[in-house]
Amino acid sequence: MNILILHAHIEPDSFCSSLKNLAFEHFTANGDTVEISDLYQMGFNPVASRSDFKSVAQEKPFNYLKEQIFAFQNNSFSDEITTEMQKFVRADLLLLNFPLWWSSVPAIMKGWLDKVLALGFSYHPRDKKYETAPFRGKKALCTITAGGSSAAYTSEGENGDIMESLFHLHHGTLYYCGLDVLPPFITWRTHLTDEETLKGYLNDYKIYLENIDFNNKLY
Amino acid sequence: MNILILHAHIEPDSFCSSLKNLAFEHFTANGDTVEISDLYQMGFNPVASRSDFKSVAQEKPFNYLKEQIFAFQNNSFSDEITTEMQKFVRADLLLLNFPLWWSSVPAIMKGWLDKVLALGFSYHPRDKKYETAPFRGKKALCTITAGGSSAAYTSEGENGDIMESLFHLHHGTLYYCGLDVLPPFITWRTHLTDEETLKGYLNDYKIYLENIDFNNKLY
Repeated sequence: MNILILHAHIEPDSFCSSLKNLAFEHFTANGDTVEISDLYQMGFNPVASRSDFKSVAQEKPFNYLKEQIFAFQNNSFSDEITTEMQKFVRADLLLLNFPLWWSSVPAIMKGWLDKVLALGFSYHPRDKKYETAPFRGKKALCTITAGGSSAAYTSEGENGDIMESLFHLHHGTLYYCGLDVLPPFITWRTHLTDEETLKGYLNDYKIYLENIDFNNKLY
Repeated sequence: MNILILHAHIEPDSFCSSLKNLAFEHFTANGDTVEISDLYQMGFNPVASRSDFKSVAQEKPFNYLKEQIFAFQNNSFSDEITTEMQKFVRADLLLLNFPLWWSSVPAIMKGWLDKVLALGFSYHPRDKKYETAPFRGKKALCTITAGGSSAAYTSEGENGDIMESLFHLHHGTLYYCGLDVLPPFITWRTHLTDEETLKGYLNDYKIYLENIDFNNKLY
């Protein structure tokens, strides 16, 4: 398998980064090929703008979505975006590794989704989405370090069911692009737990990765 | 009332920008004070990083959330973030005006939420959130241009209920910070509609704004 890990943490020595490292080691030892887009390390610019295109169809009024279609048809995305698209094309599994910020991905990762999963390339709202998306059948998986407790993220908890918080990402983004969405791996109260608990999470993640059932999907 | 409009569209001549303009005109004519953070026009940098702080408590390992608390206690956020925080403090109503990208806000606006609604300042997961948040009672409202149809965004539609897609923003972000969340104003298939329909949407928005019931809240 080819795996693309998107990673969005500023600190290489963070627990979130150690989960990224563990996934890299696991899949590599398994004989898989792993690429990592370490967005902070790359200095990835998440702001969708004119500079995402080598040429544009229409400067004024500027329509970002129309420019995405034009760039897809004319192979004129910026080199940075083209490189990320190529990684995505090669990947059988897209693994998003991030800390949960405001019930979603950090801005730097949101920008990757906004810019790389471009209209025309990964979907078209008319006829290329969900079951008919171009990359139908690729897998996706979110590995998340959350600040809240697991109890807080249930339907009875103050934050509501974590799956409802992640619906926009799992269903509205990944499944929209045709990806099979696997159940997420989540660590809870990550910033508050002691070393022993964090070691336990790493062990849980190892077991999780060793036992992934690619047929067991949310969507 | 003091109103802060967060606006996230690259093109001043877009329909999304015209909704921002209409809200500005409506509230100004109403005698309210309106400030606008036009994130593209400001060149807002959405990436949470070391440069968000004038000094840091600990360079290595770098912990962004701990630095937010430190900066709040020491008044050492960057000038850009401090300015946005001051606008937010002044506002009775926070109006988020944006195109729906991947069932959420564009990255440039996500970065505003990540960086300005900082730990310590607008919430603390231990004891300052939801009903006990520091800014409890401010209002929030999302004005959204969506690409899909309203039928697609129902529980029977292919995208699911729009309120489930927006849960992470309405509940997981705005209400978490103690804000009263008003029902969103949404335009559908915005990029595909003709001039007449867009004019109709502007008229609908005018009526919506004229009839806002600040006691009718989602959360």
